[in-house]
Amino acid sequence: MTIVDFEPFVAELAVAAGEAILPFFRTALQAQNKNGRGAFDPVTEADRAAENAMRSRILSTFPAHGIVGEEFDDHQPDAEYVWVLDPIDGTKSFISGLPTWGTLVALEHRGVPVYGVMHQPFTRESFFGDNARATWRGRNHLGTEIVHHLRARPCGSLEEAVVMTTSPGLLDGDHLPRFERVASRAKLTRFGGDCYSYCMVAAGHVDLVIESGLKPYDIAALIPIIKGAGGVVTSWSGGDAAGGGAVVAAGDPRLHEAALKLLAG
Amino acid sequence: MTIVDFEPFVAELAVAAGEAILPFFRTALQAQNKNGRGAFDPVTEADRAAENAMRSRILSTFPAHGIVGEEFDDHQPDAEYVWVLDPIDGTKSFISGLPTWGTLVALEHRGVPVYGVMHQPFTRESFFGDNARATWRGRNHLGTEIVHHLRARPCGSLEEAVVMTTSPGLLDGDHLPRFERVASRAKLTRFGGDCYSYCMVAAGHVDLVIESGLKPYDIAALIPIIKGAGGVVTSWSGGDAAGGGAVVAAGDPRLHEAALKLLAG
Repeated sequence: MTIVDFEPFVAELAVAAGEAILPFFRTALQAQNKNGRGAFDPVTEADRAAENAMRSRILSTFPAHGIVGEEFDDHQPDAEYVWVLDPIDGTKSFISGLPTWGTLVALEHRGVPVYGVMHQPFTRESFFGDNARATWRGRNHLGTEIVHHLRARPCGSLEEAVVMTTSPGLLDGDHLPRFERVASRAKLTRFGGDCYSYCMVAAGHVDLVIESGLKPYDIAALIPIIKGAGGVVTSWSGGDAAGGGAVVAAGDPRLHEAALKLLAG
Repeated sequence: MTIVDFEPFVAELAVAAGEAILPFFRTALQAQNKNGRGAFDPVTEADRAAENAMRSRILSTFPAHGIVGEEFDDHQPDAEYVWVLDPIDGTKSFISGLPTWGTLVALEHRGVPVYGVMHQPFTRESFFGDNARATWRGRNHLGTEIVHHLRARPCGSLEEAVVMTTSPGLLDGDHLPRFERVASRAKLTRFGGDCYSYCMVAAGHVDLVIESGLKPYDIAALIPIIKGAGGVVTSWSGGDAAGGGAVVAAGDPRLHEAALKLLAG
């Protein structure tokens, strides 16, 4: 068996996606034209351009691999290795001009995300993980490109925790009151964030992210990053998060356990 | 009478503040130590370092001017020209590692904000306004530094509007249900953002920002930016927003009028 280090290729995909997206960020014509006849929709254009850029690289480099993306049909989804792509996670942030969206790229091996990257081309940052370790690539305050390891921080109780969710309106059904049981005990609750929030768990600045209604491509890439930084990510019932749905990510396993108890239906 | 163009000095202040703050952004020790004995608190350290950097420049360049800042005592607050400084607007975003905080610098002439800047040193952007025009300085997708004019976008009805507020929890008393009357009719409601949201109104990506409980230094710098981009910013009752409190910013005067009607108590 050959062990392949996919990290350089994952990084190359994310950069290619970012280059395809950035010319569309903060363009004047807005996504309200999405359903207009012949209207230009920068989000869809950027999404498709980025997914195409990634797909063509995967198809030419790893023709046996599968691809599951947000914008196009699945390609060999039962292959041993499958790429799970979300060119713009956080399209609502994207259309509002906020820099908290990102490109998500996961590589799954037999259904398990083994590599993940979140790339933010506007802030010029990448968060990478392979379940065993996680790294950040960006620039320090002097503008020099640097790479450092990510480490989630210890947080033993909800009362000390910074909790995030993208929007209370995205917590459907009875998920909102269950989320509020947790949020009402937390030190600080913040909204917004999209994929950025999960990366802040890995980086040790946020303790808990609680969301529901996620698609597999919204979360697959973030799992190896959070786990690689020492965090925990599962469904609200403690199962595998890779399928999407209701997801809890915590930097500290004790906090994760406390959150699951309060989130139980 | 000599007309002084304060723009270069305003920009210099903001850059000095950013250089003072950025080394503290995403540092490992967190603000939960704020009240700990001898503990290091990066937010307070960064706030003070940035405000000191700005104050020393103002005192040496314009000794007759007043200074009102978040961190230190007022200096000549009744002077003809008064600088209103908020080194880190959005400290909760700052401690959560999100890039939606900013340094706010306003120059008031007889109580009226005449110059304002929001500077984000991590994303390396500045939003500037003088009530007559507004500009953005940052980098394009090729990394080249560029400056362009900001223009709020037309939006004739709430049903087409992107509405933002930093957090529903910050809308105190009866402000939350009044906000919800507006939000429930909007096309999209987004949370998070802090000063960044107001700049996105000026840039034409967000239509309406509605907040309450603001301090004067939370909003003074943003007024000349929004007005310079063709937007409107007032209190919820249509009065002057420079004093803080409950504030509405809109890119389109028609939308502003519609929002005020729904926000009326």
